[in-house]
Amino acid sequence: MVQDPFKPAARVAGQRQDVWSIVNEAAAAYNQEHGAGSVVNMGQGFFGYNPPAFVLDAAREALGRVECNQYSPTTGRPRLKKALADAYSPFFGRPIDPDTEVTVTTGANEGMLSAFMAFLEPGDEVIVFEPFFDQYISNIEMPGGKVVYVPLHPPANGATHTTSAGDWTLHMPDLEQAITARTRMLVLNTPHNPIGKVFTRAELQAIGDLCVRHNIIILSDEVYDRLYYVPFTRAATLSPEIAALTLTVGSGGKNFYCTGWRVGWLVGPEPLIKYVSAAHTRICYSSVSPLQEATAVAFEQADAHGFWDASKREMKGKMDRFNEIWRELGLPYSEPEGGYFVLVNLAKVRLPADYAFPPHVASRPRDFQLSWFLIKELGIAAIPPTEFFTDANAHIVEDWLRFAVCKEDEVLEKAKERLRGLRKYIQ
Amino acid sequence: MVQDPFKPAARVAGQRQDVWSIVNEAAAAYNQEHGAGSVVNMGQGFFGYNPPAFVLDAAREALGRVECNQYSPTTGRPRLKKALADAYSPFFGRPIDPDTEVTVTTGANEGMLSAFMAFLEPGDEVIVFEPFFDQYISNIEMPGGKVVYVPLHPPANGATHTTSAGDWTLHMPDLEQAITARTRMLVLNTPHNPIGKVFTRAELQAIGDLCVRHNIIILSDEVYDRLYYVPFTRAATLSPEIAALTLTVGSGGKNFYCTGWRVGWLVGPEPLIKYVSAAHTRICYSSVSPLQEATAVAFEQADAHGFWDASKREMKGKMDRFNEIWRELGLPYSEPEGGYFVLVNLAKVRLPADYAFPPHVASRPRDFQLSWFLIKELGIAAIPPTEFFTDANAHIVEDWLRFAVCKEDEVLEKAKERLRGLRKYIQ
Repeated sequence: MVQDPFKPAARVAGQRQDVWSIVNEAAAAYNQEHGAGSVVNMGQGFFGYNPPAFVLDAAREALGRVECNQYSPTTGRPRLKKALADAYSPFFGRPIDPDTEVTVTTGANEGMLSAFMAFLEPGDEVIVFEPFFDQYISNIEMPGGKVVYVPLHPPANGATHTTSAGDWTLHMPDLEQAITARTRMLVLNTPHNPIGKVFTRAELQAIGDLCVRHNIIILSDEVYDRLYYVPFTRAATLSPEIAALTLTVGSGGKNFYCTGWRVGWLVGPEPLIKYVSAAHTRICYSSVSPLQEATAVAFEQADAHGFWDASKREMKGKMDRFNEIWRELGLPYSEPEGGYFVLVNLAKVRLPADYAFPPHVASRPRDFQLSWFLIKELGIAAIPPTEFFTDANAHIVEDWLRFAVCKEDEVLEKAKERLRGLRKYIQ
Repeated sequence: MVQDPFKPAARVAGQRQDVWSIVNEAAAAYNQEHGAGSVVNMGQGFFGYNPPAFVLDAAREALGRVECNQYSPTTGRPRLKKALADAYSPFFGRPIDPDTEVTVTTGANEGMLSAFMAFLEPGDEVIVFEPFFDQYISNIEMPGGKVVYVPLHPPANGATHTTSAGDWTLHMPDLEQAITARTRMLVLNTPHNPIGKVFTRAELQAIGDLCVRHNIIILSDEVYDRLYYVPFTRAATLSPEIAALTLTVGSGGKNFYCTGWRVGWLVGPEPLIKYVSAAHTRICYSSVSPLQEATAVAFEQADAHGFWDASKREMKGKMDRFNEIWRELGLPYSEPEGGYFVLVNLAKVRLPADYAFPPHVASRPRDFQLSWFLIKELGIAAIPPTEFFTDANAHIVEDWLRFAVCKEDEVLEKAKERLRGLRKYIQ
């Protein structure tokens, strides 16, 4: 007989409090003290505004149709798969088969889990660059995979000068040394969260060729694929050999400002996609029907509405508008090449020596204390990026914070006004 | 180096074609020959009509609010958790804490997977009654769990007389013998799919007491909980000791006619729910926001609209309307006590000896051939229930088919008209 029926499986046990709970709880406490909605939340990467009207209209219309409220095929609604194939075919330079080369998932997150579940046997290794989106780790570990970390190196002068996100670099010898007989997959992320780096064609070519030499599947997380401010290359376009091993991940939530819709997808060769679909069927069965239908319409109509250009232009405008404050304060930041996150270096900010941090914050690196202090004293929430590093490498970013700029312009202006309160702590 | 990068993990490899694909493909072929929408599909349990207007209105309204389009808390939107706590508290006879005793999942399916992921270590055993909903099996096996089957026994005269779904019985000695030192969980399903049995209080008490004696967690799949035609008992209400070990599973899709919305939940004691939440966070992160909000409103307003009573009355009406055809044809069926499926015995139907079934149908039990024949010759789709049994016990239901009656009344009448075509094959 099991002695303790409440004992959790190792895969969910004993995790320390995650960054999202810490930041959200501190923000909630600020709101409780200062009134609902008073904190400026630039922490989590949700949008502070709605999807465009043509997308919302499509969702409302779908809700009126019986078949759009019932189960979709497990691999996704045919209309959405066709819209995705049509959207990706020009990028990939070849016609993509909507039936066999596209599969729809419950957000990009569950899509990536499905890919790991499809190919990892216990003990298989997956290479992940540091910093990493935190969900990768539990998603790799769930099927028994082992994460092998390869660091991205920050610019040497990042604490004193504003640098480019492109200055974060991968050392190819690090990557080559990480490969073993058990290496099964490699996770790419471009544009990168939290760095904002867009990997160059030359970088991707080197990574891709290495994966081909070692039969490594490339899982390319490209959920910020419509938000790049320098030339953007997709891994699957580099060579037929690389394409044959590449699964490209996309997100309707990131593309159309609706992170709560949980519509994602993977595009790739049939021999890979079919097993991702099989895993997805076992995890979620099918994904949300009316919002799949709306996402199909969103892709069909995006060009006619000039949406993609406007989306990129508006996000770059928000990025530039917000980052003015760092120049004003004399704080260096890392200029993003893509996405909607900016990393700012707060080494110059002196926190009061006697400031009382709660134990679960005092015990974490300095960026957690910076984050806590900004919420409590200035009413502005940002994410401590050491959460995206292993403990051994956390020191690399312990002076940085990550801000999400996908917010209304007036919120960005309010944030800047509050951040001016930092001046008295800056040396 | 991995020799074959396309080799799938064992958990997704080598499954035979599932029943849904076989039936859906045959139905699609019929439609191709006879015109779109011409097959009468009583196979999969999706609704042939829309959610009620007050639920659709709530979904459309939610789509207009920024926070309803962005990430929800991973454990679910507070409004939905409160609505669920309010709905379940009277059933459970105690106030349920919405913060700690309810967690929202991406449909009941992913909710059950989350429960298995939360508690199963590789080699742990889970008791499942036969017949079973097919997704249970892969969901148990994904975290390395081992399924231990215990059969429900059909009424001895089910091939000659119309019987009650309640005549399917569990032999308690079978269940007691199935328990080992590794038994970690037991899956209940009431009202039962595909049998339509509603377990009696006495049956549940015996099962629950046994689980308490052996520290076994009860995962009670009650997704058809609003559709019962005899008294319905929830496992969690039997005793405090049973409640402490019981996770109750619910489904917005089944409750409100929207199987494509993917909103489900688990209700249970905090020491169990917290790990289900942790697993769900790692699987899907969060669930679909606007449809969670709409489901909250649906629960808030259901009583005022008299929805629950009408829902049950209407479904019972459909069941009775459809089953008239079996009396007319002289074919015995199993009168459901709940849910929207009916099992019909077609032992008296003689399939033409020279009928050409394709190999993937010819190689399966007779119910697959019956299903194929009904689609091809009569244009009506039903599910062969041997799919819900292990091979060893499949013979128990090889003469039966499962029909879903959650369809418009005119569809039911059309189905009856087509089924009259069976007459010439009945001995």
